[in-house]
Amino acid sequence: MQNAAIQDLYPDDFAHCYGCGRLNAIGLHVRSRWDGDEAVARLTPRPEHVAVPGFVYGGLVASLIDCHGIGTAALAVASAAGDETSPPQRFVTAALHVDYVRPTPLGTELEARGRVAEIGERKVVVDVDVLARGEVCARGRVVAVRMPESMRRGDGGAPS
Amino acid sequence: MQNAAIQDLYPDDFAHCYGCGRLNAIGLHVRSRWDGDEAVARLTPRPEHVAVPGFVYGGLVASLIDCHGIGTAALAVASAAGDETSPPQRFVTAALHVDYVRPTPLGTELEARGRVAEIGERKVVVDVDVLARGEVCARGRVVAVRMPESMRRGDGGAPS
Repeated sequence: MQNAAIQDLYPDDFAHCYGCGRLNAIGLHVRSRWDGDEAVARLTPRPEHVAVPGFVYGGLVASLIDCHGIGTAALAVASAAGDETSPPQRFVTAALHVDYVRPTPLGTELEARGRVAEIGERKVVVDVDVLARGEVCARGRVVAVRMPESMRRGDGGAPS
Repeated sequence: MQNAAIQDLYPDDFAHCYGCGRLNAIGLHVRSRWDGDEAVARLTPRPEHVAVPGFVYGGLVASLIDCHGIGTAALAVASAAGDETSPPQRFVTAALHVDYVRPTPLGTELEARGRVAEIGERKVVVDVDVLARGEVCARGRVVAVRMPESMRRGDGGAPS
């Protein structure tokens, strides 16, 4: 598949995420693809994703950075392995940081651009800028780690 | 009003936020109240707020920390001024940090507990823990600043 969105390659049990899962009927559907040395995702917030009238609420920007950071990490590991068509490695977020540089306008498409800052066996660090109308509105950093076994049980950590 | 949620005192034009606005019909409705020296908010994620089956997606946890951090900042400033019934000062998020300590289980109520780390004229720093079933799942920090004039125009920063 040429320049596929990495989320479209996730196995079904990793494709329910509200932020980026193709199987989440009402989620945000973040899609991360290579664009040169950066990974890009585009998202147009819905009218209800408001903070104060005219601007996007911070949690939506954080969600975009989070899911696109994880997607960029998976893209980077797939590219490093030379295999961009198999189901990718699964990462989860260990830490998320967002600096809100200027208010993010509502009613326009947002572009998230991810760059790999560090890539290791267990951990990938990704920097993500979020732009609206060509201006950076937020700068983020995502520390992505391999998904722990405890998340594969799918029981929410309830006592068995 | 005794121990009101600060979000119920926001003026109408600050009450549309997807995370915490009482006027957002389909938002999360985060509500922040004093509980001793800490501010507490409780939220039960919806089934669609999934990451992988059984666990909450990171963006929801970040949104809860963000809005409860802002709410805690407003509570702290109101208490410091000795006026807990007037429309509160309006804060926005300058920076958000989240450490995901363990996977957050879906299907149970989350409790966010906020503590003021620093309080100044222009800036309030709040630490927020998110707990599920009594265990800390995430630790966050919110840097809250007074809402800039540019956000009061409500035009999304579009050229006039």
